[in-house]
Amino acid sequence: MAGETPAQPVEISALAEAVRAHAEPRAVDYVFGAAGREDTMRANEAAFAGWRIVPRMLRDVSTRDLAVTVLGTELPAPLALAPIGVQSIVHEEGELAVARAAGAVGLAMAVSTVSSHPLEAIAAQGGGPKWFQLYWPGDRNLAASLVSRAEAAGYRAVIVTVDTFLPGWKPRDLQQAWQPFLEGIGIANYVSDPVFRGLLDRSPEEDPQAAVGQFVMQFSNPKLTWADLEFLRSRTTLPLALKGILHPDDARAAREHGIDAVIVSNHGGRQVDGAIASLDALPAVVDVVGDDLGILLDSGVRSGADIVKALALGADAVLVGRPYLWGLAAGGEAGVLAVLRGLLAELDLTIGLTGHTRPAELTPGLLVRGS
Amino acid sequence: MAGETPAQPVEISALAEAVRAHAEPRAVDYVFGAAGREDTMRANEAAFAGWRIVPRMLRDVSTRDLAVTVLGTELPAPLALAPIGVQSIVHEEGELAVARAAGAVGLAMAVSTVSSHPLEAIAAQGGGPKWFQLYWPGDRNLAASLVSRAEAAGYRAVIVTVDTFLPGWKPRDLQQAWQPFLEGIGIANYVSDPVFRGLLDRSPEEDPQAAVGQFVMQFSNPKLTWADLEFLRSRTTLPLALKGILHPDDARAAREHGIDAVIVSNHGGRQVDGAIASLDALPAVVDVVGDDLGILLDSGVRSGADIVKALALGADAVLVGRPYLWGLAAGGEAGVLAVLRGLLAELDLTIGLTGHTRPAELTPGLLVRGS
Amino acid sequence: MAGETPAQPVEISALAEAVRAHAEPRAVDYVFGAAGREDTMRANEAAFAGWRIVPRMLRDVSTRDLAVTVLGTELPAPLALAPIGVQSIVHEEGELAVARAAGAVGLAMAVSTVSSHPLEAIAAQGGGPKWFQLYWPGDRNLAASLVSRAEAAGYRAVIVTVDTFLPGWKPRDLQQAWQPFLEGIGIANYVSDPVFRGLLDRSPEEDPQAAVGQFVMQFSNPKLTWADLEFLRSRTTLPLALKGILHPDDARAAREHGIDAVIVSNHGGRQVDGAIASLDALPAVVDVVGDDLGILLDSGVRSGADIVKALALGADAVLVGRPYLWGLAAGGEAGVLAVLRGLLAELDLTIGLTGHTRPAELTPGLLVRGS
Amino acid sequence: MAGETPAQPVEISALAEAVRAHAEPRAVDYVFGAAGREDTMRANEAAFAGWRIVPRMLRDVSTRDLAVTVLGTELPAPLALAPIGVQSIVHEEGELAVARAAGAVGLAMAVSTVSSHPLEAIAAQGGGPKWFQLYWPGDRNLAASLVSRAEAAGYRAVIVTVDTFLPGWKPRDLQQAWQPFLEGIGIANYVSDPVFRGLLDRSPEEDPQAAVGQFVMQFSNPKLTWADLEFLRSRTTLPLALKGILHPDDARAAREHGIDAVIVSNHGGRQVDGAIASLDALPAVVDVVGDDLGILLDSGVRSGADIVKALALGADAVLVGRPYLWGLAAGGEAGVLAVLRGLLAELDLTIGLTGHTRPAELTPGLLVRGS
Repeated sequence: MAGETPAQPVEISALAEAVRAHAEPRAVDYVFGAAGREDTMRANEAAFAGWRIVPRMLRDVSTRDLAVTVLGTELPAPLALAPIGVQSIVHEEGELAVARAAGAVGLAMAVSTVSSHPLEAIAAQGGGPKWFQLYWPGDRNLAASLVSRAEAAGYRAVIVTVDTFLPGWKPRDLQQAWQPFLEGIGIANYVSDPVFRGLLDRSPEEDPQAAVGQFVMQFSNPKLTWADLEFLRSRTTLPLALKGILHPDDARAAREHGIDAVIVSNHGGRQVDGAIASLDALPAVVDVVGDDLGILLDSGVRSGADIVKALALGADAVLVGRPYLWGLAAGGEAGVLAVLRGLLAELDLTIGLTGHTRPAELTPGLLVRGS
Repeated sequence: MAGETPAQPVEISALAEAVRAHAEPRAVDYVFGAAGREDTMRANEAAFAGWRIVPRMLRDVSTRDLAVTVLGTELPAPLALAPIGVQSIVHEEGELAVARAAGAVGLAMAVSTVSSHPLEAIAAQGGGPKWFQLYWPGDRNLAASLVSRAEAAGYRAVIVTVDTFLPGWKPRDLQQAWQPFLEGIGIANYVSDPVFRGLLDRSPEEDPQAAVGQFVMQFSNPKLTWADLEFLRSRTTLPLALKGILHPDDARAAREHGIDAVIVSNHGGRQVDGAIASLDALPAVVDVVGDDLGILLDSGVRSGADIVKALALGADAVLVGRPYLWGLAAGGEAGVLAVLRGLLAELDLTIGLTGHTRPAELTPGLLVRGS
Repeated sequence: MAGETPAQPVEISALAEAVRAHAEPRAVDYVFGAAGREDTMRANEAAFAGWRIVPRMLRDVSTRDLAVTVLGTELPAPLALAPIGVQSIVHEEGELAVARAAGAVGLAMAVSTVSSHPLEAIAAQGGGPKWFQLYWPGDRNLAASLVSRAEAAGYRAVIVTVDTFLPGWKPRDLQQAWQPFLEGIGIANYVSDPVFRGLLDRSPEEDPQAAVGQFVMQFSNPKLTWADLEFLRSRTTLPLALKGILHPDDARAAREHGIDAVIVSNHGGRQVDGAIASLDALPAVVDVVGDDLGILLDSGVRSGADIVKALALGADAVLVGRPYLWGLAAGGEAGVLAVLRGLLAELDLTIGLTGHTRPAELTPGLLVRGS
Repeated sequence: MAGETPAQPVEISALAEAVRAHAEPRAVDYVFGAAGREDTMRANEAAFAGWRIVPRMLRDVSTRDLAVTVLGTELPAPLALAPIGVQSIVHEEGELAVARAAGAVGLAMAVSTVSSHPLEAIAAQGGGPKWFQLYWPGDRNLAASLVSRAEAAGYRAVIVTVDTFLPGWKPRDLQQAWQPFLEGIGIANYVSDPVFRGLLDRSPEEDPQAAVGQFVMQFSNPKLTWADLEFLRSRTTLPLALKGILHPDDARAAREHGIDAVIVSNHGGRQVDGAIASLDALPAVVDVVGDDLGILLDSGVRSGADIVKALALGADAVLVGRPYLWGLAAGGEAGVLAVLRGLLAELDLTIGLTGHTRPAELTPGLLVRGS
């Protein structure tokens, strides 16, 4: 479908409304919801509105270069696709379509442990650089196996999500009483893994329900501590990022444990309702480790202006999540591509129109507090 | 009905809306309303939104213990059921159903002086610990009698409500021109009391209207002062809490008069419209008596995250009121149980996901001010 | 109709909505509107919400006395009826009905220069004390004549409105292209005045249109200065108040010119849209002249809690305007009476429930800033 | 149509709603929209609401004079018509009708480079003073030619818009996939220009599409720097203003480059969504160059009170944009005239009612921060 002009709304919040109105209810609730009353999800967006940009004029901005290097990967812009699982819920091609769209504009894509398609199949779509997102399983050998596979498939960094050692409280999911995992959606990377298969009495093909049960046991691990990360550090030479850091003391600990980057994130408001907005947590983290670690941010990014604000406050790049998923729901690969092109265009224009030519020129002095 | 999956909404504010839409109007107005323009009721909820949690990651939180001891009672979680009167208005089983639901999860229940059923009948439902809430009557011997009965029935603490010495201005009730008390609802503990019966010329069975009249005379007492509390202190060895304290000087006075605990509360916004939000009043009270008295909070608690915020600001436990009443209205015992299980689950997850294993670990440093 | 239970809403904002929905459009627009975008009208109400009361408990408040002395008049409560003109627009009895309702509860009523009925006729309804509100006319002898008539009719104070020397910009009136004055409504005090009649070539009965024309010329006076007030001061021994003071320097000037009281007011938002909320202007005025002058406040008072907040911030009493007009529109005399009784009851309860027995006990320490 | 009473709403925001409801969708989107999520457009209006006026009373304000001199032009009031292009989209007479309406009240009109009619034809409508707004083209000789023509036609100042060197990101336009320029609307000043015609192989009459293509190439210039302004400074003796200055350092640079005035503006929120509100940017600019340069402001002005606030914060005058365009859409020349008369009347009344007689008397002390 690439190349078609999608009828989908150009403006992201209008796109969201359109998808919300037309998608299947349980998909809406599962993929678009958040924890609790969804206060933190709303706070993520509101935090961006709390900052205002003061543009500069009459500088020559005819030549702009948005490229940055993050997690050892050179990116065409300080923007990557956040890891999102089970994307086939909103579109059958899921991550495969997303990978092709990301490739069309050269953006990096973070692939979720619970992707609908195996990580190797996603990588085989070609396109931009891939990062592998790891939900640390109960069995650390499974973690090592998944990372080895990602390395073999050409993934260029590992992002360990650290805020999901317990499930979030998500009333919408509980209301629908639907867990896609229980239908086997999102366990493609597990059932194709030799270590995982070794944990089963019978193959997933023979006994799918037992595979699901093992998946649930493995999925998250409330015992996870900093010590476990040292194991992973010893098993891969890929750059390592921690996703879900909000407290500056945890950012400091990341540095002490040889981590390369932190992703300031509250999981889009899907884990702890009442948690600090991601952007509000950014300055303290930058203050503590900004000189030493890569810093990315996700949760609430909806526009080029939002990206400029995060960069000005010290992020090296941002991850965008829900917007591309809305594009996927609305129009598959073409829908994702339209969203990414829109974000890139608005980012480029906002950087230029505020008097800048490169992301590195964006500093806190560009912003003032606003209503 | 326990064990059934209630069709009621999981998320508390959605539950409230559902009940508001379906319950009988005068019940909605009487039980769900508040004083004046209901500004303070709304402010109670908004105050929680004004604080944001900064979670910590990568701690081992696999073993969590939510138990606390409050008012001399060991509780499985820092959460109890607030005293609410005349519950039969929303469900015929009223407090009996609530007692069974609370018992099913072991939570403490505070039973109101104006319960629909006698305090002994409620205690006979078994289950978790019971506290007796006292509206101080005009005749102090009636107060002593009620407390003696509660002691005899196994109640483990007395909560004296101190903010109802005059009625609140409740336009919704005035509009309906309906007072359940005038129909004899909510006077079960009076008509079964020997002291109260001694105040009547004829028995309540013979002359129900005279009993209602005497009840109205006894119900509240604008002459109540600290000196009266000394009488009660001398008549019972049960722990004594004062409910309705908002000013730190009143908390200081409570300590000087041998009170064991204060409950920071504005009666859910039902007494003084324009009053400070309960959560906003908490820090000054904690500052003054936090080392010496038990501190509980009610008014506006709607989620596990709210409970975490109150605990972080210094409460030892919270009382939840309207949410369980909405559950009662929606589904009787099963409805209450669903609400309580939801709150406990979200509280447990929020404590764990923010990096903690016990309530005592929650301190003000966990919070930042937020939009 | 007094004594009947009006069907009108008890809560003031609900009453307002009901009237807005049912009254004649041009009456709604003329009487209920405000200047410009009506921002200041809304800000008046919002300013009250910005303060929160911290109640005190366990004081004996069984005996309360709300009486205060303001403008030399002893009032049963720190509450009077603000001057409102042309009340016959919303109810044919207009000020006559209001006077009887105010009399039924003993409250003071300020009668407008542009009342629908002559000031003498209003006074003849008996009841509570009357104050005369003066729009300073072009001809100062007319001012003196109006004040003399008020004295003769038993009025006990003169309130000079100082914020109407030019008309406000009221889009709603311009839209309706309707001015009640041009139909002769609201000029009863002029056509009955000997000085005014002396300014006409023919009597108002013979040439009503010429009388209207003369009224328009006389109505307001952009040349009015402090020097003019000295003339009035020399012509009456009644206490003099200035209505419309917002700046502390103007309050200081009032003291220097022998004025007895100031009324902090923005005319209910009807003159300068964008003006400071009346309550927000109060503290600076109290700070400067609170020890020397009487201080009243109007604009935005909608509840007993609002009155308590104004008193706590230093007002000696408040004037209530729109609420009683809504009562008049909804139910005539009985409608006004219901509003006044409601406000008195809520005021009495709020004073008692916050631990006080007299208005003088209310001080700024009772309040905290709130969301 | 002048002289007719238009049925259009008097209040500006009601007028906006009426136009939004009735105008052609693509015109609404093109002319009424803004960049991105339109946050900055809304912030512009909200910034005015954040300031509150504290009026003064009892001063003689019977004689008021609103005249000011700005950009070397004496104006009857501190108010001019902002440059808006392609006005024929909303009314066929476009700028010609606007020029006549502005002339009827003597207000200055800034004429856009992309006006629907040639600048000479607009000037020929007579009326008030004209200023020429310049979008700096790719070819500086075209800039010089346009300015020479404006001089010859009697224009009295040149306003260089400096915030449009790149297009803004406007989702509404992208959604409609409609650019009026591509249909030749708004290029009247180009196709009538000898320098522009010299850039074409064939005349615009022979090859309209090639003219449009050349226009697009010329329209804006991301290489524009302060050095280019020196060229313009050397080619005209007219006063020069820069429109689109938000940062005080850029205001300082304007002074250093011999510019006469700055217009604090974010292009009505049409260029950088997320940019600071225009009014919020004003004080810092005034602080730096207020004594040396003329300072105007646009973006968000909707009422006389808004104008008073901008003047009090240091602007010498304001430009009003959307309101008169709404008037044009609603009623052509008469519609514009009604809007201008309304603004002038409200401005005059607000200056008088706050105790002032001339714009120069408005100082920051007139304002307080408000909710």
